[in-house]
Amino acid sequence: MSERLIVIGGVAAGMSAAAKARRMNKDMDIVVYEKSGYVSYGSCGFPYFIKGEIPRIEDLIVRTPEQFAKQGIEAHVHHEVLFIDTVVKSVRVRNLETGEEFTDQWDKLILTTGGVAAKPPIPGLDLDGIFTLRTPEDALAVRSWLEEVKPQRGVIVGAGYIGLEMAEALAAHGIQVTVVEMLPQVMPNMDPDMAQLVQEELERQGVDLQLEHPVEAFEGQGRVAHVVAGGTTFPADIVIFSVGVKPNVKLAQEAGIALGPTGAVAVDDHQRTNVPNVWAAGDVAEALHLVTGKPAYIPLGTTANKQGRVAGTNAAGGDAVFAGIVGTAVAKVFDLQVARTGLSERQARDEGFDVASVRITASSRAHYMPGHRPIHVKLIFERGSHRLLGAQMVGEEGVSKRIDVLAAALHAGWTTYDVAKLDLSYAPPFAPVWDPILIAANVANK
Amino acid sequence: MSERLIVIGGVAAGMSAAAKARRMNKDMDIVVYEKSGYVSYGSCGFPYFIKGEIPRIEDLIVRTPEQFAKQGIEAHVHHEVLFIDTVVKSVRVRNLETGEEFTDQWDKLILTTGGVAAKPPIPGLDLDGIFTLRTPEDALAVRSWLEEVKPQRGVIVGAGYIGLEMAEALAAHGIQVTVVEMLPQVMPNMDPDMAQLVQEELERQGVDLQLEHPVEAFEGQGRVAHVVAGGTTFPADIVIFSVGVKPNVKLAQEAGIALGPTGAVAVDDHQRTNVPNVWAAGDVAEALHLVTGKPAYIPLGTTANKQGRVAGTNAAGGDAVFAGIVGTAVAKVFDLQVARTGLSERQARDEGFDVASVRITASSRAHYMPGHRPIHVKLIFERGSHRLLGAQMVGEEGVSKRIDVLAAALHAGWTTYDVAKLDLSYAPPFAPVWDPILIAANVANK
Repeated sequence: MSERLIVIGGVAAGMSAAAKARRMNKDMDIVVYEKSGYVSYGSCGFPYFIKGEIPRIEDLIVRTPEQFAKQGIEAHVHHEVLFIDTVVKSVRVRNLETGEEFTDQWDKLILTTGGVAAKPPIPGLDLDGIFTLRTPEDALAVRSWLEEVKPQRGVIVGAGYIGLEMAEALAAHGIQVTVVEMLPQVMPNMDPDMAQLVQEELERQGVDLQLEHPVEAFEGQGRVAHVVAGGTTFPADIVIFSVGVKPNVKLAQEAGIALGPTGAVAVDDHQRTNVPNVWAAGDVAEALHLVTGKPAYIPLGTTANKQGRVAGTNAAGGDAVFAGIVGTAVAKVFDLQVARTGLSERQARDEGFDVASVRITASSRAHYMPGHRPIHVKLIFERGSHRLLGAQMVGEEGVSKRIDVLAAALHAGWTTYDVAKLDLSYAPPFAPVWDPILIAANVANK
Repeated sequence: MSERLIVIGGVAAGMSAAAKARRMNKDMDIVVYEKSGYVSYGSCGFPYFIKGEIPRIEDLIVRTPEQFAKQGIEAHVHHEVLFIDTVVKSVRVRNLETGEEFTDQWDKLILTTGGVAAKPPIPGLDLDGIFTLRTPEDALAVRSWLEEVKPQRGVIVGAGYIGLEMAEALAAHGIQVTVVEMLPQVMPNMDPDMAQLVQEELERQGVDLQLEHPVEAFEGQGRVAHVVAGGTTFPADIVIFSVGVKPNVKLAQEAGIALGPTGAVAVDDHQRTNVPNVWAAGDVAEALHLVTGKPAYIPLGTTANKQGRVAGTNAAGGDAVFAGIVGTAVAKVFDLQVARTGLSERQARDEGFDVASVRITASSRAHYMPGHRPIHVKLIFERGSHRLLGAQMVGEEGVSKRIDVLAAALHAGWTTYDVAKLDLSYAPPFAPVWDPILIAANVANK
């Protein structure tokens, strides 16, 4: 009898795992249980679906259950796993359409239950018109609300990258947007000096940004009408609640699958959990941060896909390793590209590094080329050794892939001296002859 | 008495050297002799000046002799160095404006005489209306010709990146452009399969591309009227002759400064020549290629600026090293970005590597984002070890800085396995969740 692999969760990590396991092993039974009505969707596209740039939610689907079936992968949507038994190796599953429950046996289990939107106990959080954004159903609900209610005033709670992407999405519908944020800056993974550039862009775009305004309550009769934050009342007929993502570890905890120091599922470099034959991957799991050498919880689609592949390979009898992350991320905030990799200055200090940093402003193209725009580069490095610890970039063009050069530098463990030596590409339409990265490294090396 | 540094040539390498020497050493006399009428210009901008995107030639100047004078650097334009005496440590100089000749003494000498356009003995090459493109005077002459003659038919001889940038520049003036190239492909530093993509773009843009058409003669009465190439006669009222650049080593050779195997001036990692107290940098000099471990001649502004800094530091009593190059370059060819780093497949074979390669086509943005365009990535690696040897990329967006990640990989000496591990940035407007680089590396690793 062939081995049976069950994958719990069918988004980035889960479907990468299932597909890779199938390619590795033609004989294995592979079954995926996904609670939502969709598998294999690009959740990072939700803001652009809501904005209206992407016409249909189906456009975000990479492959449907029918397409997976042709590869010999049974992907069941609207199926919630209720319990994992790691002794008899089974899962208890509920078909959310019929209410029927059943038990399924596994030889190998991959846990990709993802993340859930953090929802602190704030009065009124369950009013209509308040949305989080994790599933296609969430995105569809926001778009329906936009069509049916035609909101005039939107409040975004939380100025992380999803919040700011949603600010852009709502503004595109002519909604007057207020962003309320508990912290004194937007994008807490960026340093305040770089976040300031993002804040200026939000102001230029007419967004009402309210920093140091923790949300206290939502008010309304059935439907949200006001947001109370920092003692001020903001009118709102739509609210996007995006204060962060937590690993969805309930099933893992109940099954005795160990969590790590971040609160996400602990995994080794093979994506193995502490329970034999159980792997975890994606937003439910930790990842080794190569700069700190410690586990980190940075839930991103890129990591989920890579970890899923590794888990799938290993569950199918192969031997793959996930090398780790360096914390690279980019977001579009209106006309700005905002990117980071490694540690922020604050994170580096918190890790005990003796931190130095430089920040430069250069040009995205040769100074004489029309259309050149400022590009801001910050390098964070260890005083003395000059080991690169992190980098941040903000600009209207040339940021999104330029940050990846510094991500590579972190993988290599380079110093700012090493970075200054790089033979980077140059042509007047694309860069100055001294690339902004090299300018920053040269300043760091002075 | 203070030491005297003479720099021969005042463009990228020369002025970087002079400026760096001044920052290192406040006391040194620093004198630059430049044959053309300009110093410190961005010659890579000439095609865009000729195209009309840049209004004035002065826009290409980084700093004028007057500005250098304020830093205590004497920069003399229209001054040609005729001879270097390395025994008595002098140079013989002619003031091209007055015809006056004089001798100047140096303690330290930096040779940055640059490159010259290759000019094989082709009948009619001296006809009016045939231009090479090395100096601001060349660029001004082309622009005057465009204004005065209003050419209808242009022939570009040589399909390297300057030739193709000039094809775009002439086409922008409504000129019907023919490109004649001796080789069976454009851009000989790209592999034929990637060059094919560029050839298709030239066709789309209405450029008449004539491969395997070596130029045999230029014909006309005083002024060019026809180009004969590969037995065919092409009408032309303007010709851009761009068949390559050679190091301008005449002064060096006469002075007993040794050349390397490439025919350019041999330098060590301090930009020292074989003659004490004489450094060389930029398009006149070789550079260590980090992939082959051998000297190479790849004249580019990026290398010239870096080498100039190193030469300037060392001539001023400091201790700087130029690490070497990996052969990174990018060019805009109409709507395409065309980039390369490391060795091409052919170059790698010529170097004796057992070469493997993969080529993939991916999307420049998430598949569901409007405006995504194909991006073609080729990785060249050593069979067996999977050591990365080179990479090439062609696409309408997202190429110019993405190639730099692979340049960094070459600096690091990574394999395609290492490349596949990179934590690269992702957001739907800027990349697919599997970056094209990772897709290519994953295919290479299968």
